[in-house]
Amino acid sequence: MSAPRPTSRTEATFASPIVESRRWLQEAQLPEGLALLNLSQAAPADPPPEGLRRALAEAAMNQPNAHLYGAVLGRMPLRAALARQMTKHYAAEVSSDQVAITSGCNQAFAATLSSLCTEGDEVILPTPWYFNHKMWLDMQGINTVPLKVQDNMLPNVESCAALITDRTRAIVLVTPNNPCGVEYPDGLLAQFYDLAAARGLTLIVDETYRDFDSRSGPPHQLFARPGWDNTLVHLYSFSKAYRLTGHRVGAIATAPARLLEIEKFLDTVTICPSQLGQIGAEWGLEHLGDWLAGERDEILARRAAIESGFAPLAARGWRLLGAGAYFAYVEHPFHHNSTALARRLLNEVGVLMLPGAMFAPRDDADAPRQFRIAFANVDRAGIQEVLRRLADFTP
Amino acid sequence: MSAPRPTSRTEATFASPIVESRRWLQEAQLPEGLALLNLSQAAPADPPPEGLRRALAEAAMNQPNAHLYGAVLGRMPLRAALARQMTKHYAAEVSSDQVAITSGCNQAFAATLSSLCTEGDEVILPTPWYFNHKMWLDMQGINTVPLKVQDNMLPNVESCAALITDRTRAIVLVTPNNPCGVEYPDGLLAQFYDLAAARGLTLIVDETYRDFDSRSGPPHQLFARPGWDNTLVHLYSFSKAYRLTGHRVGAIATAPARLLEIEKFLDTVTICPSQLGQIGAEWGLEHLGDWLAGERDEILARRAAIESGFAPLAARGWRLLGAGAYFAYVEHPFHHNSTALARRLLNEVGVLMLPGAMFAPRDDADAPRQFRIAFANVDRAGIQEVLRRLADFTP
Repeated sequence: MSAPRPTSRTEATFASPIVESRRWLQEAQLPEGLALLNLSQAAPADPPPEGLRRALAEAAMNQPNAHLYGAVLGRMPLRAALARQMTKHYAAEVSSDQVAITSGCNQAFAATLSSLCTEGDEVILPTPWYFNHKMWLDMQGINTVPLKVQDNMLPNVESCAALITDRTRAIVLVTPNNPCGVEYPDGLLAQFYDLAAARGLTLIVDETYRDFDSRSGPPHQLFARPGWDNTLVHLYSFSKAYRLTGHRVGAIATAPARLLEIEKFLDTVTICPSQLGQIGAEWGLEHLGDWLAGERDEILARRAAIESGFAPLAARGWRLLGAGAYFAYVEHPFHHNSTALARRLLNEVGVLMLPGAMFAPRDDADAPRQFRIAFANVDRAGIQEVLRRLADFTP
Repeated sequence: MSAPRPTSRTEATFASPIVESRRWLQEAQLPEGLALLNLSQAAPADPPPEGLRRALAEAAMNQPNAHLYGAVLGRMPLRAALARQMTKHYAAEVSSDQVAITSGCNQAFAATLSSLCTEGDEVILPTPWYFNHKMWLDMQGINTVPLKVQDNMLPNVESCAALITDRTRAIVLVTPNNPCGVEYPDGLLAQFYDLAAARGLTLIVDETYRDFDSRSGPPHQLFARPGWDNTLVHLYSFSKAYRLTGHRVGAIATAPARLLEIEKFLDTVTICPSQLGQIGAEWGLEHLGDWLAGERDEILARRAAIESGFAPLAARGWRLLGAGAYFAYVEHPFHHNSTALARRLLNEVGVLMLPGAMFAPRDDADAPRQFRIAFANVDRAGIQEVLRRLADFTP
């Protein structure tokens, strides 16, 4: 039995997990005496530092062009500042005409796919996946080819090669990974780049969480490859680094010719990114380097709190599958589906996490045992409390 | 000979006319001694009033949630304020759950179409059309069925009925019209509504320029129809009314169930609209009613300046086909294609207008004689100067 053909683009996909989990929250009867610990969304809970807020306020008052249409591909000073920062971060030359600004990193993904694929094409996506990637592919009539990660939560390049057909257009990687938290080794990215280049595919690498990578030095060498921009599309977000989630500022790095195709999509869908958001992102790039280093230290300390505090859970049969950037990915020991357990955990112990089914194909055998813990906006004491409540929980 | 199948969504459409015209500007050798008169884009040239700018600055400094993710369908206070304002403007009840906020009105269109159509469906679009509508339909694999307007620049409902097939999903109207400037009579909109309802289609009415309609009272009675939200999708923009083009704030009004479908698209493409932009729009709705009435008076005076100053052009064979809101649509008397003439007018007399070909199918016989004049950001003296330069021009 095949499903009936969807009558619209949106009908071809599922409701947003984030929206769904907000409905759970609205309907929840939280346990008395226990504060909610919301680990559902990867989002800073605090506003940006005062200096950045002041820069926005001053631009709103005194920069007329902060209110007017800007260039479709973004403000040139921001493109140039990001290119300089990337050149330093990756120790490889990136130029401003290889960089464009988007209304958030989800839009960067959507625009990129629209420049690569059409109806019936195929895109390879490691699972667990980032659900908005899957939703966009569904809504574009693109067939998602799932590439299940191995036990270390990393995809295998030979398994990927076996999935390539003549309709395959791209391979999508996310590092540090959402939802699994793992940081992809440089060598693994190199293998995927070589595979994509050899087969004439595009390698899309979403590095939304790159500022919270635990490794020192460049996380990969892909930008040092000659002609990298013909094979690679790099995606980035200013939202997490500078706490600008409400301003919608992301970025794409790839070949200038591809950016001209992407420009058609961006012009049609939003005309230009928020000017104030871009002004904030540029201020952040110029002034918040040291501050961001401190933010990273704090996120790494929270990750360490998860890892070091996991023993009591492990003793009860939980497994920590991956941890890094904003996320831990865990396996629970119960004979219950994690989607049902997610609502029980919310109502019984006041902990909200997204279940594995939100990150996996319907037939995935492991998803019902998995949860994503988005720990970034819970402090270390809160993380200890989460782990304590989970260890005490019996369904 | 059919064109080869496009290999990507973006390849299926043309480059943005606005981007294209900016390139013409960059390449132009402007005539000495003549200031540029740029009539290419419908955009305010000045920032919003000081009160609104101050509201943005204060929110940036003191409202933490101005920087954080918000609801996918927009801030509830803004949805409620818009519903109240629409209830007054259209003299018919509109509720906040029938209204959603988007990252600009182009996105409102894109999201709506994604909730209505899939590959190979058909949408009827009067021509001359708004080019970003055509671009989105192209990029979604939706077949645009052109409905050529009559001599009065209005579409005919019987001609429209004759174009409906079993793949037709929607009819799109823009009033006041971009690019033609004409205001669609209430009776005509009623006919199109009846046609859509009778044939089970959706009627999309883009009213981006409604605040500059010359008529007093509600521009149409569609919101008074029982169950209007099952047939009608109304699109709106805060950009023009409150000079917020750089903040990307638009809106959709339709059935709450359709908004839940639209929510999937918005979540995947931008997550939420700019929070500061929404704060500005809400402030505008609450405080700028009188100011906006003055803005409308000024736009109507500019339109009158076009109409009253057109005689010398008419004497040389030019025709004023339509004028209203931000636009006049004109026919030139020369045996030259308006696309070629547009670049000559820029280089020889410093006037930039978009040619008819940007608003019409390739085989349209009239487009090469037509131009759109986006006069809103040129004052009355500037408009007289434009008309003088055009009247003096001989190719």
